[in-house]
Amino acid sequence: MHVAIPLYPRFTALDAVGPYTVMAFAPGCTVTFVAARTGPVVDDRGSLSLTATASFQDVPRPEVIIVPGGPGTVEALQDADLLAWIAAAHEHTAWTTSVCSGAFLLGGAGLLTGRRATTHWGWLEQLAGFGAEPVSERVVVDGKVVTAAGVSSGIDMALTLLARMSDVTTAQAVQLAIEYAPEPPFDAGSPATAPEGLAGRALQLIA
Amino acid sequence: MHVAIPLYPRFTALDAVGPYTVMAFAPGCTVTFVAARTGPVVDDRGSLSLTATASFQDVPRPEVIIVPGGPGTVEALQDADLLAWIAAAHEHTAWTTSVCSGAFLLGGAGLLTGRRATTHWGWLEQLAGFGAEPVSERVVVDGKVVTAAGVSSGIDMALTLLARMSDVTTAQAVQLAIEYAPEPPFDAGSPATAPEGLAGRALQLIA
Repeated sequence: MHVAIPLYPRFTALDAVGPYTVMAFAPGCTVTFVAARTGPVVDDRGSLSLTATASFQDVPRPEVIIVPGGPGTVEALQDADLLAWIAAAHEHTAWTTSVCSGAFLLGGAGLLTGRRATTHWGWLEQLAGFGAEPVSERVVVDGKVVTAAGVSSGIDMALTLLARMSDVTTAQAVQLAIEYAPEPPFDAGSPATAPEGLAGRALQLIA
Repeated sequence: MHVAIPLYPRFTALDAVGPYTVMAFAPGCTVTFVAARTGPVVDDRGSLSLTATASFQDVPRPEVIIVPGGPGTVEALQDADLLAWIAAAHEHTAWTTSVCSGAFLLGGAGLLTGRRATTHWGWLEQLAGFGAEPVSERVVVDGKVVTAAGVSSGIDMALTLLARMSDVTTAQAVQLAIEYAPEPPFDAGSPATAPEGLAGRALQLIA
């Protein structure tokens, strides 16, 4: 199974590397980071570059795409080459997926019309602007389109996806390999459980 | 606060990028990826390079170090420059931390003698070989040395650390920003809960 993860300036690193790690540990999976050009792509904090080893043209027909989000989606929504690659790849994928605001890039490629989808809690309702039905769940599967909530949710999404791509035991083996038995020290990861007034502060950190 | 994350060949990407993302979202934190030489460093799967923007010499006194693990720790334990940098940095750090088998590099630098520490479940008992007391917990704090269990545990470690470095509200704001309200689709992330026979399969995926 060939998985492609497109990068663009100011993506959020964990959006990409969470699901990457799940997929890359799975037997028989090859993951390629792709971008407009090969070479390093700088993330949203300006302090980490991941290397794209292939251009969009090099990887026209991956079986799975995982589109990360990040503040750079605002500019990426104007990137005709990126959106065209997503749309064209989707024609042949087994699974077309996104993490966080990567969902807006699926939307920009015209793939969310009439679909249930999710994204980061901070701008969930904006998915309706792409014809999607916003759903406040961590992972939303609608046909072959799978969207995940904010940043860290890509790990849950990738394990869910891997179980469907291969089998439950394989996904569980990867989960155990990466010791994914989370114990967050606080119960503040969702607006539903976070202390009052924290949402504004969290959104400031992202901007 | 200046956080340095050392890279070496065949590190595990999520070990580094999980805590990186937590720290990089925190106000007032600067994170630098360091390595023997600046430039891309290839991970354990061979399919992802993160760029080190500074050499070990460039960053002699970070306030926090986060040492990732990975299959490459076996060779990294023979890397005198890396171990010397860890040992020298530790003299001045506020916090010296590791994820997964990164703990063995702290051990190789002589920092675990007499300390409680943890690492990936697959080789927890081997920490005793470095004079540490192996502890089967997700995050272990012993003085200024903080060790985390396997791969994904670095996120929990970083949030725990951030609350101590700054304050609980800041850590919670980052947790909400990255929507870290995990919902693993299976309860297989720990040997204590995984189906019988899965441990061997998980270890094969890592090797």
